Amino acid sequence: MRQKQMLLPTLREAPAEAEALSHQLLLRGGYIRQLAAGIYSYLPLGTRVLHKLEHVIREEMEASGFDELLMPAMQPSELWEKSGRYTEYGPELIRLDDRHQRGFVLGPTHEEVITSLVAAEVNTYRKLPLRLYQIQTKFRDERRPRFGLLRGREFLMKDAYSFDTDWPGLDASYRLMVEAYHRIFERCGLLFKAVEAEAGSIGGEGETLEFMALAEIGEDTIVSCPSCHYAANLEKAVFRQKQDSKLPLTVVPDMKEIYTPDTRTIEELSAFLGEKPESFLKTMIYMADDQPVAVVVRGDHEVNEFKLKNALSAANVELADVEMVEKITGAPHGFAGPAGLSIPVYVDMDAAAVRDGMAGANRKDYHVRHLSIGRDFEAVETGDFRNSASGDCCPHCGEGLAFSRGIEIGHVFKLGTKYSKSLGATFTNQEGKEDLMIMGCYGIGVSRLMSAVAEQYQSEAGICWPLSLSPFQIHIIPVSMKDAAQADLAEELYNKLRQAGIDVLLDDRDERPGVKFKDGDLIGAPLRIIVGKAASEYQVEWVNRLDGNEKEMIDAEEALARVNEICSSFAGRL
Amino acid sequence: MRQKQMLLPTLREAPAEAEALSHQLLLRGGYIRQLAAGIYSYLPLGTRVLHKLEHVIREEMEASGFDELLMPAMQPSELWEKSGRYTEYGPELIRLDDRHQRGFVLGPTHEEVITSLVAAEVNTYRKLPLRLYQIQTKFRDERRPRFGLLRGREFLMKDAYSFDTDWPGLDASYRLMVEAYHRIFERCGLLFKAVEAEAGSIGGEGETLEFMALAEIGEDTIVSCPSCHYAANLEKAVFRQKQDSKLPLTVVPDMKEIYTPDTRTIEELSAFLGEKPESFLKTMIYMADDQPVAVVVRGDHEVNEFKLKNALSAANVELADVEMVEKITGAPHGFAGPAGLSIPVYVDMDAAAVRDGMAGANRKDYHVRHLSIGRDFEAVETGDFRNSASGDCCPHCGEGLAFSRGIEIGHVFKLGTKYSKSLGATFTNQEGKEDLMIMGCYGIGVSRLMSAVAEQYQSEAGICWPLSLSPFQIHIIPVSMKDAAQADLAEELYNKLRQAGIDVLLDDRDERPGVKFKDGDLIGAPLRIIVGKAASEYQVEWVNRLDGNEKEMIDAEEALARVNEICSSFAGRL
Repeated sequence: MRQKQMLLPTLREAPAEAEALSHQLLLRGGYIRQLAAGIYSYLPLGTRVLHKLEHVIREEMEASGFDELLMPAMQPSELWEKSGRYTEYGPELIRLDDRHQRGFVLGPTHEEVITSLVAAEVNTYRKLPLRLYQIQTKFRDERRPRFGLLRGREFLMKDAYSFDTDWPGLDASYRLMVEAYHRIFERCGLLFKAVEAEAGSIGGEGETLEFMALAEIGEDTIVSCPSCHYAANLEKAVFRQKQDSKLPLTVVPDMKEIYTPDTRTIEELSAFLGEKPESFLKTMIYMADDQPVAVVVRGDHEVNEFKLKNALSAANVELADVEMVEKITGAPHGFAGPAGLSIPVYVDMDAAAVRDGMAGANRKDYHVRHLSIGRDFEAVETGDFRNSASGDCCPHCGEGLAFSRGIEIGHVFKLGTKYSKSLGATFTNQEGKEDLMIMGCYGIGVSRLMSAVAEQYQSEAGICWPLSLSPFQIHIIPVSMKDAAQADLAEELYNKLRQAGIDVLLDDRDERPGVKFKDGDLIGAPLRIIVGKAASEYQVEWVNRLDGNEKEMIDAEEALARVNEICSSFAGRL
Repeated sequence: MRQKQMLLPTLREAPAEAEALSHQLLLRGGYIRQLAAGIYSYLPLGTRVLHKLEHVIREEMEASGFDELLMPAMQPSELWEKSGRYTEYGPELIRLDDRHQRGFVLGPTHEEVITSLVAAEVNTYRKLPLRLYQIQTKFRDERRPRFGLLRGREFLMKDAYSFDTDWPGLDASYRLMVEAYHRIFERCGLLFKAVEAEAGSIGGEGETLEFMALAEIGEDTIVSCPSCHYAANLEKAVFRQKQDSKLPLTVVPDMKEIYTPDTRTIEELSAFLGEKPESFLKTMIYMADDQPVAVVVRGDHEVNEFKLKNALSAANVELADVEMVEKITGAPHGFAGPAGLSIPVYVDMDAAAVRDGMAGANRKDYHVRHLSIGRDFEAVETGDFRNSASGDCCPHCGEGLAFSRGIEIGHVFKLGTKYSKSLGATFTNQEGKEDLMIMGCYGIGVSRLMSAVAEQYQSEAGICWPLSLSPFQIHIIPVSMKDAAQADLAEELYNKLRQAGIDVLLDDRDERPGVKFKDGDLIGAPLRIIVGKAASEYQVEWVNRLDGNEKEMIDAEEALARVNEICSSFAGRL
């Protein structure tokens, strides 16, 4: 395409609202523009990347035997009431009434719609398994939209659903998707990890994996083993304790109160008392389905609410509010300790190993020293109630675990019968009996994927897109369109590459070379041909930005040959 | 694809809710399913047709130099307040609040969003013209959704927008779109007409054309000339009167009242008095921007509110309610007449030609005879205030006009400065002065197009799709999958055609032949190969349903050659 005619508004400065570099660069490169918080228009460059992402996804979904369909964004509220998610989903679910005061939601996901569709149309094992997907716009009223396309309120998703007669069938559908997701993210050129995860609001009974693109700005922490395959998100990660984490048994002096005025946090206490955070027993009051419990972890550790919830078999676990903490401990927030509490106390294994600890005294401005489990307080249960932390070891091989940040780009769930039960998706099995369909669901955030790739392929000057996703594979930049030899050669190369089916952008503007090169960096095509003074000798500058960014003066024919060769090696995949 | 694995629920009976045959057949063929009134899921077959439509549209839009972008469905209310359409659009506009009580609408169209986007990004004549389009989901809360995809509440549209420096520029952009629309609808195999139209709620200052697919169930009436190019929709159509429509001048007796108890409509009066409707002066009371006026048309004619509105230079024209009619005429509804009214009376030319007429007496249960314009009442204006009707002649060539029904599938508008003015889309022109951009907008109802094609390509047995849009170009139906020779040959043909890049569906189900053929008719692929008993001799039955539907026994190789030949003649276009 010709740059002069395109809506391609590059920006020299990063807009103030953009925190993440990928967000800045997508704005600066003229890929997206914000319409409202978390709601974006995709300009022509961004739309081209979306289409390339969709193309990769469609090819791999079809190769896995999933058929495409398209479901509506407007969904009757009744369906969500049936599944129980109408209230459960909270304020992120956008609700509206039509002109006849009938309630609708704007779908953040489509389990309800597809399950009721399949329930109505399929009733025999002979039509199963059924594997379907769509690429469709979703709505989620995020409290705090951020990082551009990473956490938006209107976004593009690929969501897939499988319906099987039994769990082994679901295993097969699930495996197809796990394999397809690996191929998709590889074709996007991403560094990613598939990690064990918790199911969250989708629910479900079985296994679930998150696909994480590695990136510093990622909102999730990935715990992984450098020497074996183990990887999980922080919510889910388990670990072995280091051998040396148990302290030697010694006689512990009697517990005693110490005056710690206005000293509440572990950091403050640690500084005030000159003790390491490891020797504190951090005590948190939680409400587990409206029952208060205390959870004790070591001062340098964080409570993992998912593990706690599972241990308590609770539907909901959340931190108690300030009033409840005061009621239970008899002291303001910041002075809770396990000794003397009348509610059940759950103690993390590492905290239990602290024989001579410090904790809140359940009295304003006081903590205690020489606190000893079994002597000064009793645990109703000791177990793993914390997030994995630096120093933990792989549960499989014992190697020290590594921590990194990730952007969730895909998620696969074994749903089981959660939706088929509430929405009546049954079938007649081979024995003629009625049975519930076993479901799986599989999502990829398509627009988010654009940001994740931009995050991994960024530099200060702009994104340098992988060949498979770049809006243009090659950018032809004539230094001066007023020079007839340059303009002619640029046009010739442009036309030849277009005819060869290559996505090529020609900078046909009358701009200064500096402007053109800066824009070229922001637009981010991986290959570049600069047509300059040597045009009259049929010579051009060649730059492969994926391969070192070095300029090389070559014959124009040779440049064409290189483009064709590099792009054709991708043709089979795109 | 293999039929056994697909979600392809055909129905033997037409569902009761479907009036239009296209709607019935899209449901029966397993193309779509209703989720709520006017809101549909596209099953795999329907999704495939949508993609083919999108593909045709994209190719022709790109060939016209329009670049694709993608704008959000959720649009801030403020934008619509700026353009004045927030209230103007009425209850069809879906409004909602986000979690922070900020107002949004779900876009039924995107003039506001694109104009504010372009206003923010483009400010010089050097970036103009700008020509952009998107294919995107729209929302319109129709009072009475009907005919399946024809009048839905959530639907897919291609909307395009042009921004030019001046009106000749807009003329060029508009012409590009008119030509592209002709190519698009031709490639869809449609019988259609481009007709002159009124602008409606989009507004705008200039020319506008509607593209109408001819169909009996169409909601619009098309008036066209069989011998020249003239065509317009009923709202817009003008005409010449027939030469013989003027009656000879005679002396008209004095007006006199006649007793017509409970006789209100022209039909009732005509029967009661034994006179033709042509001799009645039908008198309607309208409110024009809150001022009452009377409009008189011949008894066999209908008032055209657009013509009336234009003649009165009124912003709004609507029929007066019963109370107002009674207040103005002093009689109940059904007895209005022009004589003795104290409000302005507008008389259609044909009514003015009725020298000795009948009308209401403005008195309950009475009409008048021998009413004469100029003697018994005065017209403030005589003109064209009616819809074209049978017997009218072409305004250009005088030939008798023809009437047909159409489905609006596309619409092109010259908007002018309506949106650039209200949303501040200005640019610096070549003289360095600030000027308003001149806009055009161009829509195609993509999902509606699917119904329009189905309406034209229907038979009782099912839709027979044009090759360019059929979800599958060819359907291979083995009579019995249990017969090894049949199954093998069917598989062989299936694999060879797939490898040749043909969209092929294989009916690999264990169903009775009758079921398979009925489903084949409902699915509607234009080409069909039936693999039956002659499979062992490598013979198959060939059916080209677009070409007479006759069965022919031919060699399997010959069948392959025919498919390849027919489909390759379309390859360049698809």
